[in-house]
Amino acid sequence: MYAQYECVNCVCDHAQKIINKLFISNELTEKESFDKYMELLKHLSNNAEFGMKPIELSSLIYDKYYEFYDDEDLFENEKMNANQMFLEMYEDLLDFCFSTEDPLYTAFKLSTFCNLLDFGIKNYFGELEWEIESLTKSRNFAVDDYKKFLDKIEDANNLLFVHDKAGEIVLDKILIKVIKNKYPNLIIHSAVKSRPIMTDATLKDAIEVGLKEVSIPLESGSIYPGTILSKTDVDFRNIFENADVVISKGQENYEGLYGEFNKVFFLLTAKCKSVAKDLDVEIGELVFKLK
Amino acid sequence: MYAQYECVNCVCDHAQKIINKLFISNELTEKESFDKYMELLKHLSNNAEFGMKPIELSSLIYDKYYEFYDDEDLFENEKMNANQMFLEMYEDLLDFCFSTEDPLYTAFKLSTFCNLLDFGIKNYFGELEWEIESLTKSRNFAVDDYKKFLDKIEDANNLLFVHDKAGEIVLDKILIKVIKNKYPNLIIHSAVKSRPIMTDATLKDAIEVGLKEVSIPLESGSIYPGTILSKTDVDFRNIFENADVVISKGQENYEGLYGEFNKVFFLLTAKCKSVAKDLDVEIGELVFKLK
Repeated sequence: MYAQYECVNCVCDHAQKIINKLFISNELTEKESFDKYMELLKHLSNNAEFGMKPIELSSLIYDKYYEFYDDEDLFENEKMNANQMFLEMYEDLLDFCFSTEDPLYTAFKLSTFCNLLDFGIKNYFGELEWEIESLTKSRNFAVDDYKKFLDKIEDANNLLFVHDKAGEIVLDKILIKVIKNKYPNLIIHSAVKSRPIMTDATLKDAIEVGLKEVSIPLESGSIYPGTILSKTDVDFRNIFENADVVISKGQENYEGLYGEFNKVFFLLTAKCKSVAKDLDVEIGELVFKLK
Repeated sequence: MYAQYECVNCVCDHAQKIINKLFISNELTEKESFDKYMELLKHLSNNAEFGMKPIELSSLIYDKYYEFYDDEDLFENEKMNANQMFLEMYEDLLDFCFSTEDPLYTAFKLSTFCNLLDFGIKNYFGELEWEIESLTKSRNFAVDDYKKFLDKIEDANNLLFVHDKAGEIVLDKILIKVIKNKYPNLIIHSAVKSRPIMTDATLKDAIEVGLKEVSIPLESGSIYPGTILSKTDVDFRNIFENADVVISKGQENYEGLYGEFNKVFFLLTAKCKSVAKDLDVEIGELVFKLK
């Protein structure tokens, strides 16, 4: 999919969130915030071309941003809180999966549905937990290639899981745990970002939620939103190429990894008009799509 | 007030709404929409400077836009519908004002409160009318210079009303009618935009709602959002300078006309963080401020 004019404002919102973080942390004055933002926009508008993916437009913003700043993790607290909140639910949600008729299918829905959850949500007295369980039961995939997944995984020796956001990786961990329960000999790699980008999961988050208990975490090499293969590490590309099955979470990984591989299962909730249109679903719908 | 980095995204939203209209009217392909939008952003980011007013940033967008297109009224239907809808309520709302203890104060609240109303609202079976009356009674000004207005208007010979949006001008007409009822000898000029800009009122709208019945409509010369004095006609500037009292509606006219005149009453609802901060009120609050 390529970026439409509507995608540009999403990229601008992205850029503004970064500036906002820097401003709040008192590193920037009002003038500096304004000027930095304009530099980002200038770089974007001078280099954007029709036909680029939305995440390629975001990359332009990040290229410029990385010229100003180093690896500072602007969203560290949000990510830690999200990890913590979902870790508190981990055992209960895992039990919930195993209490259903098809634990694997439930775990897929749980992990996909939670791709929609925003940072800033709170779990008061287990209410969110209850809501998540109830929504997982009631919501269905608008595109559902679960059977194709079962076919493919039957003969698979290894699986690559490309994660999306912190917090959400706890739900991915549940999914991987359930997969491992059914296919104990499967080797599973878990790819996360190589640099802090918004609320995307990094190796620090992978360690925090104990992904190592169920898979082999590694950095993909991507320092941009999503995962553009040409901008990843050679180690990641090797694992990707040799994987029998790939699970890719979220819109931005969908943009980056969508291609002619016929082994990548995209799990996501459609969050914007452009992606929903590309997938021929409505905004907010759950997608489990092989391509 | 000067534009903060947050204001930039509002300007981008503005630009996107224009592109969206052109796209929908089938004049632009996807590529053309994207490229035109990028041209607008390029012009904005190359020419924006810290210290400019938000409406000066918007002007940059319009300068570029006017290079592509002529006077086409992209929001003609929305404006006509809004004018029509409020005209249907005109008599009832006027009666409502006169039924209250202080009709003039009520008319001020009515006109200011309706500055918040969005296009796209509908009046089913008089429900909106009822809601407007009820909200006009219950809502109060967060900044209230009504008494100063009464002092100034007492000795005034002429008043200039600088309008904001179509539809809303019907409520302005009610306010002017009530002012004229109390001060029948006052000469009142009604300034509107000289070119169609989003949903701002033009002379066509002024004629449609019959502003002529209560005041002398004229074009201000402004072809940008708001009213920047240096970018208005000499006739308008003469009227502005000679006016004993000016009533300015909306955020954008506030940005443009706020100065050291001590005769301009700003009527607006604060719609964004920057303006609310500048006025020391909360978002959504009503303002009646002399400056």
